[in-house]
Amino acid sequence: MMHANVANDWWQSPTQTPNDQARQQASERQNQLTKPPGSLGMLEQVAIQLAALQGQTLPTLERVQCVLFAGDHGVAAQGVSAFPQAVTVEMLKNFASGGAAMSVLARQQQLPLTLVNCGTASDCESLAGIVHRPVMAGTADFSQQAAMTEIQARQALQLGAEQAERLASEQAQLLIAGEMGIANTSAATVLSACLLQQPVAELVGPGTGLDDGRLAHKQQVLEQALQRALTEQPAPTPLQALAQLGGLEIAAMAGAYVRAAQLGIPALVDGFIATSAALLAVQLNPAVRDWLLFSHGSAEPGHCQLLAALQAEPLLQLGMRLGEGSGAATALPLLRLALALHRDMATFAEAEVSGP
Amino acid sequence: MMHANVANDWWQSPTQTPNDQARQQASERQNQLTKPPGSLGMLEQVAIQLAALQGQTLPTLERVQCVLFAGDHGVAAQGVSAFPQAVTVEMLKNFASGGAAMSVLARQQQLPLTLVNCGTASDCESLAGIVHRPVMAGTADFSQQAAMTEIQARQALQLGAEQAERLASEQAQLLIAGEMGIANTSAATVLSACLLQQPVAELVGPGTGLDDGRLAHKQQVLEQALQRALTEQPAPTPLQALAQLGGLEIAAMAGAYVRAAQLGIPALVDGFIATSAALLAVQLNPAVRDWLLFSHGSAEPGHCQLLAALQAEPLLQLGMRLGEGSGAATALPLLRLALALHRDMATFAEAEVSGP
Repeated sequence: MMHANVANDWWQSPTQTPNDQARQQASERQNQLTKPPGSLGMLEQVAIQLAALQGQTLPTLERVQCVLFAGDHGVAAQGVSAFPQAVTVEMLKNFASGGAAMSVLARQQQLPLTLVNCGTASDCESLAGIVHRPVMAGTADFSQQAAMTEIQARQALQLGAEQAERLASEQAQLLIAGEMGIANTSAATVLSACLLQQPVAELVGPGTGLDDGRLAHKQQVLEQALQRALTEQPAPTPLQALAQLGGLEIAAMAGAYVRAAQLGIPALVDGFIATSAALLAVQLNPAVRDWLLFSHGSAEPGHCQLLAALQAEPLLQLGMRLGEGSGAATALPLLRLALALHRDMATFAEAEVSGP
Repeated sequence: MMHANVANDWWQSPTQTPNDQARQQASERQNQLTKPPGSLGMLEQVAIQLAALQGQTLPTLERVQCVLFAGDHGVAAQGVSAFPQAVTVEMLKNFASGGAAMSVLARQQQLPLTLVNCGTASDCESLAGIVHRPVMAGTADFSQQAAMTEIQARQALQLGAEQAERLASEQAQLLIAGEMGIANTSAATVLSACLLQQPVAELVGPGTGLDDGRLAHKQQVLEQALQRALTEQPAPTPLQALAQLGGLEIAAMAGAYVRAAQLGIPALVDGFIATSAALLAVQLNPAVRDWLLFSHGSAEPGHCQLLAALQAEPLLQLGMRLGEGSGAATALPLLRLALALHRDMATFAEAEVSGP
């Protein structure tokens, strides 16, 4: 086991700092626009937040990029998912050929969608249209042993960081990270339970659609996995928790969030899995939190706990529970409309409208 | 006072009937798309609902039209609004010149926005870009007398019906009705209280931003107005309630909803004022309810009562409270994404993805 010098870990480097002057100027502008102050609700708040993050009074969202990270999970062998493990690779093919929900949402909004294979159980490197960077052939079954080594966890985090660096080189203004991986609600649940020191029972849910009996089995598997990990490593660092109980695509998303924040790119966080990665990112570097916007509250019951832990209020509550980045892509039009309103509405003075 | 033959009132003519076969086929398609069944939440439900309303398995929303009805309210003289009455006409000018929130939201989505002057307190017929059809110079102060005669109420309903007929002639697939009128939360509140036989206290709120003292005054004015109306007309029909306590733009919206339903055009209902008009429309003709989709829950506290009375679950909860149709225009991208997902996603069979 490698024990790195913690002070040198890349994720601890400082993030960019939001611009308080731009925030203030955007806030003042909102109060001059021809509407009762506050009457656009959260649309006002996100415009002001994006002003602070872009460091300009009138922010724009012209260059938004989606990156979907896929990986398999050894714990799928324990029967914790409604779908067979083969679906991870089958869906990768579906993303690449444009038939998946996230493919449609990205295409409708002309968003580039990059697919990253972080490590699937069966070899799929012959599939075109995918960035193949497998760290390992899916994680080990964390109900029996650590999901990955710390070296592999670092490699998976790095996959996301590399994508964030590519986005920066392409002047992206917003990151939407999505995921695909059969059994990844299990990894997200038990990793979050470990990071938050909460019981699995408070976070576990049906994922893609387990019935009550199989949900009880999933909970038992995850409780035993958490116990095993904490016996092996009683007070794990976030990196150790990731290696014990995480997933490759969850690690990559967390790495992407951290590196994006260091490069000054905000992220619009998707649902339960993405929020577990956001939680990991914020535990790796608390200043990452400033750079995260939250798109929707998932129907997966544990999501509200993760959002509460991050003090996050999502834009949408549509009962979605698909992952892939689909909730974030669905919320994107609201951000764009919020910025159009902020930029294009007339002020009371310009329109010669009387104030209250 | 005219007493029409009730059986001949145009709003009682039948609405179009939603197509149950298209609903069923759309529902079956949703269950074949490459996602866990139900995992797109409300996006699935609205796609299925629009399939039933358009009578086709794969509905589209290419031709959406916005119509904004403006009118003044005599009760503004009682100090029930945070803004002076002049703002109604000033804002009409702002809508026409493109600086209002609804102007921006319509322009961003390439939606035609028609402005209808239903009757403002001061003459504004010199303003260009507006359909001037004033029924009267604003309503009378309903705290003192009926807001309008039943003949005027019929004329105002007709203004909306005419717009719905124009939309039908232009093959519109969705109506977004918006409104402008200083003091119209007062009219919407007291009209709804009358229609629902609920106390004003359960529905009243700060509108564009009254402080607590002025809110208490507003409540008192509206309670007295309701008492006056019920003394004059103890068991009013919906038309009589409208004439006693309504507004010209509220009547026009209700007329638009009813006529649109008769012509087979669904409507995406906005916030508190629009929902009071929807309630009136449904009391005029209960079958109109099938043709209404609900866009957002307003920050105006009484809105949740109106939504509950209509058994409506809105798509968004963003704390908006602007009116103008702004909440509906903000929700429109979600409907369009829902239909794109429904139409363009691959089925499990097409994508060769394994099922659960």
